[in-house]
Amino acid sequence: MATVKLIEYGRASAEVRAVYDDIMATRKTDWINNFWKALASHPPTLRRTWESVKAVMAPGALDPLTKELLYVAISATNGCDYCIASHTASARRQGMTDEMLGELMAVVGMANETNRLANGYQVEIDEAFRTAPS
Amino acid sequence: MATVKLIEYGRASAEVRAVYDDIMATRKTDWINNFWKALASHPPTLRRTWESVKAVMAPGALDPLTKELLYVAISATNGCDYCIASHTASARRQGMTDEMLGELMAVVGMANETNRLANGYQVEIDEAFRTAPS
Amino acid sequence: MATVKLIEYGRASAEVRAVYDDIMATRKTDWINNFWKALASHPPTLRRTWESVKAVMAPGALDPLTKELLYVAISATNGCDYCIASHTASARRQGMTDEMLGELMAVVGMANETNRLANGYQVEIDEAFRTAPS
Amino acid sequence: MATVKLIEYGRASAEVRAVYDDIMATRKTDWINNFWKALASHPPTLRRTWESVKAVMAPGALDPLTKELLYVAISATNGCDYCIASHTASARRQGMTDEMLGELMAVVGMANETNRLANGYQVEIDEAFRTAPS
Amino acid sequence: MATVKLIEYGRASAEVRAVYDDIMATRKTDWINNFWKALASHPPTLRRTWESVKAVMAPGALDPLTKELLYVAISATNGCDYCIASHTASARRQGMTDEMLGELMAVVGMANETNRLANGYQVEIDEAFRTAPS
Amino acid sequence: MATVKLIEYGRASAEVRAVYDDIMATRKTDWINNFWKALASHPPTLRRTWESVKAVMAPGALDPLTKELLYVAISATNGCDYCIASHTASARRQGMTDEMLGELMAVVGMANETNRLANGYQVEIDEAFRTAPS
Repeated sequence: MATVKLIEYGRASAEVRAVYDDIMATRKTDWINNFWKALASHPPTLRRTWESVKAVMAPGALDPLTKELLYVAISATNGCDYCIASHTASARRQGMTDEMLGELMAVVGMANETNRLANGYQVEIDEAFRTAPS
Repeated sequence: MATVKLIEYGRASAEVRAVYDDIMATRKTDWINNFWKALASHPPTLRRTWESVKAVMAPGALDPLTKELLYVAISATNGCDYCIASHTASARRQGMTDEMLGELMAVVGMANETNRLANGYQVEIDEAFRTAPS
Repeated sequence: MATVKLIEYGRASAEVRAVYDDIMATRKTDWINNFWKALASHPPTLRRTWESVKAVMAPGALDPLTKELLYVAISATNGCDYCIASHTASARRQGMTDEMLGELMAVVGMANETNRLANGYQVEIDEAFRTAPS
Repeated sequence: MATVKLIEYGRASAEVRAVYDDIMATRKTDWINNFWKALASHPPTLRRTWESVKAVMAPGALDPLTKELLYVAISATNGCDYCIASHTASARRQGMTDEMLGELMAVVGMANETNRLANGYQVEIDEAFRTAPS
Repeated sequence: MATVKLIEYGRASAEVRAVYDDIMATRKTDWINNFWKALASHPPTLRRTWESVKAVMAPGALDPLTKELLYVAISATNGCDYCIASHTASARRQGMTDEMLGELMAVVGMANETNRLANGYQVEIDEAFRTAPS
Repeated sequence: MATVKLIEYGRASAEVRAVYDDIMATRKTDWINNFWKALASHPPTLRRTWESVKAVMAPGALDPLTKELLYVAISATNGCDYCIASHTASARRQGMTDEMLGELMAVVGMANETNRLANGYQVEIDEAFRTAPS
């Protein structure tokens, strides 16, 4: 059970409804998932977070599917159950296949393993990796 | 300073040299970075880790650049300095531009933010995200 | 389900009861929450942990509400569901409003975002931040 | 060494300078710390992050010192060296004493300890902590 | 609910069955736990992960019980509920008593506490700890 | 550089000296490492932390070497450079060989990998792992 009351559309203030409307229009859907209903307990956080997510996840130098794969990888690394569930669903809608999910999880597992090996042995960064980017 | 002695090629056993040779051949390079020289203090871990990394990072349903981007994202989330430096360098070699790195970091930041908001409010997973994959 | 048996007051040893009595007296309550019943499976850990928590959370240079806010922030960052639930409840008893919780979560989200951006770009610490405290 | 070039004021675009100017005006200071110079490698992330930080850290239901204490606590939990250094300096400027820092770190240590005990024993959330907020 | 379909033995491919058979033979058991059924959604990850786990957890310079204790400690630190449950069960089968679990959790709690104190105060590594291993 | 002044023995209060004396007597050594000199900036935290570490790391159902191995594993998982350096040194003094360190790191890597796979696939805990301990 969430630690705040979820704000349903029908009970929401005009300020919150405006954000909900933009979420539904942007995502071409007619429902709002619980994450936003919880954030709506603090409207400035709802608005700011939505605007940031909307800007960050839009197509750019990286395509939307790649961005969703990154989101799943980070959420799995952090162990955020909600985010894993919601972004795995989003990634599937963007075209992620089982094979892609399998490879994604393989990279997640391997990176988490080698991150700890590098830290655990206190490996020093090679000079070649310190060259300033041009 | 690493907590184990780094094993240079010239002092390495035949078993370790075989792995080093495969690393250099696979990566089309003529040097070995410190990570592997530290793992070489325990040859079974060196061999197993290299074979896993080689398999996992090979082209498949996801292309090598996408895999490097995932590696950078996870390493940044875990705060592994060595891995951030080495995989950012690898990603640039695979074609990552500054613009792509900027968008990558934006997703990393946003996912880490919303992971904590979802956890912090203890948001329950929506039924729609629980539908079994077909 | 906990990985150890929870120790109820009626079945507890004198050593455990003494700690339970102190918890209830200190907190002016008549029940013991599951966390302590699990720790009671190892009485030295129960006693040491309670004495540390009691000392650390007492009023001092920081007031008890500020300490509870810090506890919620850390628990959200670590994704500890139990601790988020129990310390959000404690913070509310200490006077935390929805507005304060909203701002708290906004800081939690932002700090987790910028922590990863600073790590991800491997930003060097400015000289001005290294000045020794007087 | 950062994985991107730091953008100095003199070499910055008009867009980046506008953000730098606002940072200096808001903080009543005449220099820009490295964090922002790294973010400036991707101007949309610089602007969005600064606007979010500015809004989130402004006085509200929580005062600015409390917000800085939270930032230090989270940065210590995540092990972000840069953020620990910069926000400990900010907290001192806001009035944090050694005594307050000592109590802050004591809470950070204790919360990280009990977070792992609650997880490690898989303690179930008490019904009393699940009561919906009114 | 898992984000992939669990693969039961009866529906598994020959490749997956071969791994399942080896798991059951190695562990002298007649069932497969859910972790492997989820990994089976990507057979190369199933095989590689099982072979690595089998090699790493085999008796060596460290005995199997010590390895299981380490696994529980890491899983508690990462907050992986599944892994805590499964490896606590494995450790008990290897002979872990309640007293040992109590001491294990005490070390887990203390290490997580002092890790954050050392980071939070940015303590510099003593020269004595930097001496190269012979 | 630490964010507090390190307290040297010669400048320490009687309260701090008493703890330093106990550390040196317990460890049969004649120096104090930086961690304690930083904690001494807040004497109650110094005393409480030392007493807890002394109690937790004493021989019991688990021997001191096993406890040091656990400490290294957790510190590597959390990426605490100071703690990795100091506890790897302690473990070596307690008899840890390169072979043992190699197996330890292999378990650390593997556990961090499978923790993320279990979380990433949201694997449900098997009923068999939920049986209450007797």
